[in-house]
Amino acid sequence: MTAILPSFVRGEWVTPTGDDGVDVRDASTGEVITRVSSTGIDLAGALDYARTVGQASLGELTFPQRAMLLKQMGQALTERKQELYELSKRAGSTVRDSGADIDGGIGVLFTYSGKGRREMPAGSVYLDGPVEPLSKDGTFIGRHIYTRLPGVAVQINAFNFPMWGALEKFAPAFLAGVPSVIKPATPTAYIAEAWVRILLETGLVPDGTLQLINGSIPGLFDHLRLGDLVAFTGSASTADRLRTHPNVQNKTVRFTSETDSINASVLGPDAVPGTPEFDAYVSQWFVELSSKAGQKCTAIRRAIVPAGLVDDVVAALRAKIDQRVVLGDPHADGVTMGPLVSVEQRDDVLAQVAKLVDAGGELVIGDVAAPEVTKADGTRGVVPEGAFVAPMVLTFAGAVPDAVHAVEAFGPVSSVIGYSSPSEAASLVARGGGSLVTSVVTHDPAFATELLSGSAAYNGRLLFLDRVDAKTSTGHGAPVPHLVHGGPGRAGGGEELGGIRAVLHHMQRTAIQGSPDMLTALTGVWHAGASAVNDGVHPFRKSLAELRIGDQFASPLRAVSLQDIETFAHFTGDTFYAHMNEEDAAANPFFPGRVAHGYLLVSWAAGLFVDPAPGPVLANYGLENLRFITPVSPGDSIRVTLTAKQISPRETDEYGEVRWDAVIHNDRDEVVAQYDVLTLVEKRVGAAVGAAVSVMEG
Amino acid sequence: MTAILPSFVRGEWVTPTGDDGVDVRDASTGEVITRVSSTGIDLAGALDYARTVGQASLGELTFPQRAMLLKQMGQALTERKQELYELSKRAGSTVRDSGADIDGGIGVLFTYSGKGRREMPAGSVYLDGPVEPLSKDGTFIGRHIYTRLPGVAVQINAFNFPMWGALEKFAPAFLAGVPSVIKPATPTAYIAEAWVRILLETGLVPDGTLQLINGSIPGLFDHLRLGDLVAFTGSASTADRLRTHPNVQNKTVRFTSETDSINASVLGPDAVPGTPEFDAYVSQWFVELSSKAGQKCTAIRRAIVPAGLVDDVVAALRAKIDQRVVLGDPHADGVTMGPLVSVEQRDDVLAQVAKLVDAGGELVIGDVAAPEVTKADGTRGVVPEGAFVAPMVLTFAGAVPDAVHAVEAFGPVSSVIGYSSPSEAASLVARGGGSLVTSVVTHDPAFATELLSGSAAYNGRLLFLDRVDAKTSTGHGAPVPHLVHGGPGRAGGGEELGGIRAVLHHMQRTAIQGSPDMLTALTGVWHAGASAVNDGVHPFRKSLAELRIGDQFASPLRAVSLQDIETFAHFTGDTFYAHMNEEDAAANPFFPGRVAHGYLLVSWAAGLFVDPAPGPVLANYGLENLRFITPVSPGDSIRVTLTAKQISPRETDEYGEVRWDAVIHNDRDEVVAQYDVLTLVEKRVGAAVGAAVSVMEG
Repeated sequence: MTAILPSFVRGEWVTPTGDDGVDVRDASTGEVITRVSSTGIDLAGALDYARTVGQASLGELTFPQRAMLLKQMGQALTERKQELYELSKRAGSTVRDSGADIDGGIGVLFTYSGKGRREMPAGSVYLDGPVEPLSKDGTFIGRHIYTRLPGVAVQINAFNFPMWGALEKFAPAFLAGVPSVIKPATPTAYIAEAWVRILLETGLVPDGTLQLINGSIPGLFDHLRLGDLVAFTGSASTADRLRTHPNVQNKTVRFTSETDSINASVLGPDAVPGTPEFDAYVSQWFVELSSKAGQKCTAIRRAIVPAGLVDDVVAALRAKIDQRVVLGDPHADGVTMGPLVSVEQRDDVLAQVAKLVDAGGELVIGDVAAPEVTKADGTRGVVPEGAFVAPMVLTFAGAVPDAVHAVEAFGPVSSVIGYSSPSEAASLVARGGGSLVTSVVTHDPAFATELLSGSAAYNGRLLFLDRVDAKTSTGHGAPVPHLVHGGPGRAGGGEELGGIRAVLHHMQRTAIQGSPDMLTALTGVWHAGASAVNDGVHPFRKSLAELRIGDQFASPLRAVSLQDIETFAHFTGDTFYAHMNEEDAAANPFFPGRVAHGYLLVSWAAGLFVDPAPGPVLANYGLENLRFITPVSPGDSIRVTLTAKQISPRETDEYGEVRWDAVIHNDRDEVVAQYDVLTLVEKRVGAAVGAAVSVMEG
Repeated sequence: MTAILPSFVRGEWVTPTGDDGVDVRDASTGEVITRVSSTGIDLAGALDYARTVGQASLGELTFPQRAMLLKQMGQALTERKQELYELSKRAGSTVRDSGADIDGGIGVLFTYSGKGRREMPAGSVYLDGPVEPLSKDGTFIGRHIYTRLPGVAVQINAFNFPMWGALEKFAPAFLAGVPSVIKPATPTAYIAEAWVRILLETGLVPDGTLQLINGSIPGLFDHLRLGDLVAFTGSASTADRLRTHPNVQNKTVRFTSETDSINASVLGPDAVPGTPEFDAYVSQWFVELSSKAGQKCTAIRRAIVPAGLVDDVVAALRAKIDQRVVLGDPHADGVTMGPLVSVEQRDDVLAQVAKLVDAGGELVIGDVAAPEVTKADGTRGVVPEGAFVAPMVLTFAGAVPDAVHAVEAFGPVSSVIGYSSPSEAASLVARGGGSLVTSVVTHDPAFATELLSGSAAYNGRLLFLDRVDAKTSTGHGAPVPHLVHGGPGRAGGGEELGGIRAVLHHMQRTAIQGSPDMLTALTGVWHAGASAVNDGVHPFRKSLAELRIGDQFASPLRAVSLQDIETFAHFTGDTFYAHMNEEDAAANPFFPGRVAHGYLLVSWAAGLFVDPAPGPVLANYGLENLRFITPVSPGDSIRVTLTAKQISPRETDEYGEVRWDAVIHNDRDEVVAQYDVLTLVEKRVGAAVGAAVSVMEG
């Protein structure tokens, strides 16, 4: 009997014994590859291990440190990805199909690594939004923070993307600081086992942060508690069933789901045959129908096209299928489209097609007969034990039945619907009851705007395709880690990816209220009104090793004369009347008369706070949130106060970012301007001098 | 028989007839005030009216226009608030209690009005986060938007805050553009009816945007569909029941709940008797116990104090109660604490107290006997038909039973728990299973940090109280509109308020992908790479009436000499070595040698793009997201391109904000710097000149 696939639990590989378990077969040949069972696996123990050992491992790391590990994991998987490509062929994936899964999954690691280092602070508290003043005197303020959930992320994945689908959940959880317990779908569990094994062999994965349970997870939800979360990808019906568990019901456990949906692709009325948009529409549809043999939760199930163009679109698609599709075993050369993952999936797809036909559908492309395919040895023939299905497209005469918007054949199957007005097109999109994605192919901004207005609320993602982006588009069916993946209603109501948004899903948002000093202590970021340190050492002379939040420089006053304003105006060329003409300036509602340039003020402020000799401060690389509050008239004096607000050492460089709170006052102690000054500062004095680095590198 | 309270549905007041309905009684006297019934009210019709007429009304308004209406509603309610104060006494509310409900509710309208005008764009699409580049050549980009849900917001409110509780849901929904159907709690429905009537009489409420259903709503959930949402406030058990409805289960309907929770207040070990923190702790606890007679979902149910201080804390609280509490009918002078809302609530509270006693609790303050109270006529006596309960505090000898963390007596009742270490204090907080708020009273940042770390994930809000903010704190029990209200687990898992966050809860986030031109058309905001218009008219000569997104000014090149750098250095005082010393500058990793000051570049850019004569551009009030990308060496030339990016007319002024995309290039077409320039521009030429206005006014 075939061996059972091991699971990785509590720090070790465990292989269930016994004669139960589910056979997993090669999609093209039906040959048994492995057996999957979780019998004897300590599910509650795995959760407990994650909550204790895993939480402790990640608790020792900052966001950027976790991000660095993700990058190294991505590099390690890249080195051995050929093994994974080869293995994936047994699940029916062509090399192109596996690109989305394997390189796509690695890409998620790299993207989250970059975002984690660029967009998250060097600590474990993430700030959300600005300070909210809650008292007039500034002693009581509020803001929002995110801290990690104290539990475990249980990730239940679908069969179609055993690597990307798992890593797009794992990476944000890891970055948040929450350990993962991954439960792959049985038909492709051996691929998940392979990449997990590769990752664990690198030694990069902190103890308890990644566990793998192959097989079913009976009773696991009973062991979940507040602080845990479940991220599910799969069918809408399974999601609905899982949601009924009391621990999800009563909000003890955070539950998010991403389910297959009846996605649409809309062709604009302008996109007639002969236009680049028509071609882009057909090309994209072809890709969505044939890649992964249509087994994508984002695939185009409904082609919504102008009624008069239905025949043209179908004809163009048919031509492309005839030209490009070579159905067969991905092990054979020249095969462009593989089988479904299993004969069970094949039978299910055919059953759903039968429902669409019963509802009035006519198969205008393809049929349900077992197709002739290319076998691994290059010969052609029908393989009943292979899960092959040919691309199929249905049209509907008369009124469009509800089935078109509700029945999903999770394979290379689409329906075509004609529409006669933009509002009808938008309504048809909405009838899907909530989709992951809709694409709108048009070069007409008015049509695009009407579709957005009528259907954005029913979609997690809207792709607008035209001649400008047809070549650079990442495609209808491809979630990108930068943008949210998920949709309302039928699509599961969840959100994954979307950059840091998915990290925050693994954290709790909490409003905190207190004094500026207390919020400074709690967040590691200096808050206006908090204590500051003026120890006589200019803070620009301190490296990151010496600088502390709250270190401050306060300049003396410097008087601004009319001559200064004239000099600056003629030097810069900025002779705006508010600086040059007393009468005109006084007529302006915001100025008492001629006033100093705002740019003069910030330039002088730099002159006041700068420490000119070489030192740990390498560069002022930017400035944020500058607001001019009180105009400065000739005769006024200004002074500047600069306070170290946030310190962010880089993981990969000998320097880091320091954000300074800058406030310019006049001689009446009114605030003239406030802003953040962004600088690059060495970790130790002299550490970065002479090194060739780029300012903008992440 | 008492008349039935009318409901407001489909644009008209409807009074059910018949002899069913629930009697609503005066909390202090038991006198019947009104009867509540929804018999014969067309619930499905109300939903449909909101989705059609209400959505259409709000669809004609931008975010700032809706925000202006909220301000006017707040003003209208302020004018007639005395009627509401008077009416609220019948529900047991003292004038102080009603402040939180009535002025608090009006305050929510004002806060959302201000935030809607300052923080939301002049349109109906809200942008979330920055542009995400998705192709190397910039032709394909992505970003996130929010658009309003296309349905109706059903708002189910609790009895304790019939005005604030409803308005804190209504204001964000209205601002989002989603019509409300409000279902008040029956015991205080007559107060909701009163403020709704006042509001409707002003004519400010657009048709279909506010409907009121008094009485039960049988089957209403069956009529809900994708695009609708339900916001529930009330008991955890009711929330759990509502969540089981199939329309909520399958994610068709967005459901959020805010439920009572077992909130905690922690006293730090440093806050011994005699410290300001000890006094602040006891004062705050007293307020939470006595105001609204403890009927607040945010009230302190668990006082978690150092074991050695339990007796001190109880003694201090007892003294305050003895000194300050005058229990009675709020109509009587001198009464400081009213009854519960109804005798049913009283009986329920006493039943919960009995459970706590059964679990080992000892009543160290107060008892369950019907108290002597001040009647409306000023006499004292026991009133069995009034819902009076005296403040009660329980202590527990030995191990703390689970009941303390689970049983809620929704009245003036708290338990006291001793702790012996900071980590134990945090664990006790967490045992509440998710709370709306925990306060931590300490002047020790280390203790505060440990509590944050151990309990933030179990709380929607954490208040840190010490000598600095004790006087200015808004209080443990008071949600503020700027910060989120809601909490994980037992607290319902929802979020309300939090400024614009609550508005977004009524909207769908959608990722959009397309070309810069398409995203510009869809969002009304210019995106880098999109077409621009150089029509020969300097865009600074255009008022808001004439200016269009994409209007652009492109300057000629201007050469930067070493002398210019010297001049600027000596004028500003900024003699940083990177500008002054070739050798030192070249040793810096970011500079090829001496380079121009960043502030010189932006000052010159202003000189290049400014149009000096008086015109519609009134002021440059700020600058955002400035990044210096490529250093400028002596001999290089720079040019600037300025493009109108976002136009935001103000509702209340003769001018508005224009955000300009500014890019400085060198003579090799490399990007030197990029930033946003913020200006104030007249709606029509000359419209604002001579008017006295403040730049920073919202």
